[in-house]
Amino acid sequence: MSQKPSLPRGTRDFGPAEVAKRQYVMGTIRRTFERYGFAPLETPTFENLSTLTGKYGEEGDQLLYRILNSGDFLSDVKAEDIEGGYRKISPKIAEKGLRYDLTVPFARYVVMNRHALTFPFRRYQMQPVWRADRPSKGRYREFVQCDADVVGTDSLLCEAEIVLMIHDVMTTLGLPYVLKINHRDLLQSLYQQFGAGGTDAGMFVAIDKLDKIGWNGVREELVQRGFQPQNVNTLISLLSLAAGKIEGSLADPEFTKDWLKRLSNIVPATEDATNAFASLEIVRQVLESADFTDFHRVELDLTLARGLSYYTGCIFEVVVPGASVGSVSGGGRYDNLTEGFGLKGMSGVGFSFGIDRLCDVLEERGGFPAGLETTTQVLLVQFEELDSRAAALRTLTQLRAAGLSAELYPEPAKLKKQFAYADAKRIPYVVIIGPEEAAAQPPQAKVKVLATGAEHAMRLEGELLRYLLAENE
Amino acid sequence: MSQKPSLPRGTRDFGPAEVAKRQYVMGTIRRTFERYGFAPLETPTFENLSTLTGKYGEEGDQLLYRILNSGDFLSDVKAEDIEGGYRKISPKIAEKGLRYDLTVPFARYVVMNRHALTFPFRRYQMQPVWRADRPSKGRYREFVQCDADVVGTDSLLCEAEIVLMIHDVMTTLGLPYVLKINHRDLLQSLYQQFGAGGTDAGMFVAIDKLDKIGWNGVREELVQRGFQPQNVNTLISLLSLAAGKIEGSLADPEFTKDWLKRLSNIVPATEDATNAFASLEIVRQVLESADFTDFHRVELDLTLARGLSYYTGCIFEVVVPGASVGSVSGGGRYDNLTEGFGLKGMSGVGFSFGIDRLCDVLEERGGFPAGLETTTQVLLVQFEELDSRAAALRTLTQLRAAGLSAELYPEPAKLKKQFAYADAKRIPYVVIIGPEEAAAQPPQAKVKVLATGAEHAMRLEGELLRYLLAENE
Repeated sequence: MSQKPSLPRGTRDFGPAEVAKRQYVMGTIRRTFERYGFAPLETPTFENLSTLTGKYGEEGDQLLYRILNSGDFLSDVKAEDIEGGYRKISPKIAEKGLRYDLTVPFARYVVMNRHALTFPFRRYQMQPVWRADRPSKGRYREFVQCDADVVGTDSLLCEAEIVLMIHDVMTTLGLPYVLKINHRDLLQSLYQQFGAGGTDAGMFVAIDKLDKIGWNGVREELVQRGFQPQNVNTLISLLSLAAGKIEGSLADPEFTKDWLKRLSNIVPATEDATNAFASLEIVRQVLESADFTDFHRVELDLTLARGLSYYTGCIFEVVVPGASVGSVSGGGRYDNLTEGFGLKGMSGVGFSFGIDRLCDVLEERGGFPAGLETTTQVLLVQFEELDSRAAALRTLTQLRAAGLSAELYPEPAKLKKQFAYADAKRIPYVVIIGPEEAAAQPPQAKVKVLATGAEHAMRLEGELLRYLLAENE
Repeated sequence: MSQKPSLPRGTRDFGPAEVAKRQYVMGTIRRTFERYGFAPLETPTFENLSTLTGKYGEEGDQLLYRILNSGDFLSDVKAEDIEGGYRKISPKIAEKGLRYDLTVPFARYVVMNRHALTFPFRRYQMQPVWRADRPSKGRYREFVQCDADVVGTDSLLCEAEIVLMIHDVMTTLGLPYVLKINHRDLLQSLYQQFGAGGTDAGMFVAIDKLDKIGWNGVREELVQRGFQPQNVNTLISLLSLAAGKIEGSLADPEFTKDWLKRLSNIVPATEDATNAFASLEIVRQVLESADFTDFHRVELDLTLARGLSYYTGCIFEVVVPGASVGSVSGGGRYDNLTEGFGLKGMSGVGFSFGIDRLCDVLEERGGFPAGLETTTQVLLVQFEELDSRAAALRTLTQLRAAGLSAELYPEPAKLKKQFAYADAKRIPYVVIIGPEEAAAQPPQAKVKVLATGAEHAMRLEGELLRYLLAENE
């Protein structure tokens, strides 16, 4: 009884070459986070659904993967419950769900450990998340996020440090980037004026789709979400005005001032909006003091909305110009995330790198350094003769003890086959201790360098190890 | 609306200190695997249930976590289906399941990629797995396995290398161990003689529980599983005879020969059994040639069964004497694992370390080295005054660029509060660039060493960085 195996849609295997590339990207991010004083946290793959639902908006709730209760999951279900439809029966048969992002589990962790943690608390977290989304280019159902968050302070230094970390990571990876910044209060201010009939969360979700569905799509979605058509028209005009003309960078203090002034003609001058402008200016000043010089990559973008409902302050998004995938990083400040777990007044800010998209971008740009993949450094040939095999086994132990990655071919196959194996695995050195070499006094070894075809004869004891260590330094 | 957050039973958060410990263990294992020529593989968290079910025995199937289909999972379900009970409805509403171990996904990967892989194929894999088991000491519902497998050869060199890798890892971690070896064909031979009424898989599962339920428990379970009581009595006598008297190590060739001879009085002398004895002797010879000296830790144990149904050859299990958890490693040879996916004749052998149990054992023995946790190395104090803050930000950038892990306290809080933060986070160096220091010509900095209370004044430019780099070398 056999079946042709397959992978669930939207998931992937990662072989040795892919793992090496992913570890390169994750290692770069980890080192940056640690230099900025962030410490690692890991949370479970599944959480109680009571922790997850209601945190990601209606669309998010639908994209959660739910785990069927163990044992007789029907014990609490009656036949007539079926008539109520799947939404009604779901909470009775599934109490746990897969991690959807790293921010909500982090908030849950902070609340549960609030008496043991030192605040402001900085943590990073690099783990997979799952979304039952429609798979497409750069969009997977299982993907790895790398988050860094600070909670317990509303200092705008943290926002500035996010810009610096994004810069450090993208620069180390050799990737150009555009970092878009906006402030939720500017959008809130627009919502207060034009939002009748809709919700602020609905407005953010609609505007967030601009890149995918264009202005007309956003217009339609807002109307569908209950906003009044006339208000929607005005809102879209203002936003597209901002996008078309007032996009600009944090680089030039004068320009920023100008941008803020011009925006103030668009955004209703509420107290929130004024504070938002002041916040963006402080972020700029901190970056300047920190000797940040890549202001030309930082764009103020009023059309940046971020779909998630929990942001309350500065929001960020990072794209690689010309890349075929969407944003590779994003985040923002949230003030009420822990409130749902019973802890008020815990402001935080954080952001996330999408490892899978960064890898996709590096792949399409040929941006991975050569030689990432770790492979066996030395292959020892196996012979039928027991003396040869014994000498090879002893040598194998010595090479490994010295830190070299080494294999003995597991069978006394034909030499041609053993060399083909080394070739296919790109093992650079093949060591031959044949019957003659093993019987010689003192015992000898031959080393074949596959890249050049060169062959070197040497003493087995001492000389071989010295040679291989020197070659693999 | 707030609720008290909690974790699903059998799962855990890992804060910075725990992550550091886990990474220490995983790093030790990874380096060993790579020295032995194994390359990394990662497979998705969930697999199609058609890949998973039927591979782990009946008990395993019950412990699989199933994922509710997305969207209207009831579309294919009628009200009367409910009457059929949960087992009947489950396949209609759940098509995917969480990874239960790393071996089956590996077999699936090998079959799907068989034309691209180089055989014999060696891979290691370090990922979490999930089992809906009853949580207890050392038994979690989410835990990390570290596997190494070779497929595409039946060479017993691979079995010997498993012993060597276990030795290397346990020795590097500073843990004593007992490595038990048996061969499934010895048990098969007993099954052929005494197995009437039961299945071989059932016999392995029952014997595997010996440590937990004792001889009487095994006896009862075998009878429950349909074995004939008289045969069960004989089988138990033979096995307990072997356990009580013929346990021994591979150390002494004479002893091994003796053990084999004595066992041959117990185990029916089928061809399988004779080959099994020969295999164990070859493993011993390879280990001897490889200069393995810890034979006293390797025990031949006829009562070692391993519960999983797919093993066909040598089987292994590793315990730490005196530890409160069960085995920390186990594995064996399987000949038919890829057959269920349509690929015959692919023999493999592998084993797995349980990270969580190794960490538990190291914790209870106080076996973790000191200073594992990475923490911020330098805290810069923040002052109200803009010149101080600007100097601190510039310094922060310089320290980080030089590779130091550094933070600026995010707010101009009272000095006492900022020092308390450094204390709580065990940040060893606090740098003060107050208004006086910033205004001095040239600008100065004070460094406070928290461990000693010593304070050092120095020039801000150049001297501070040199000092901190030297201290943190």
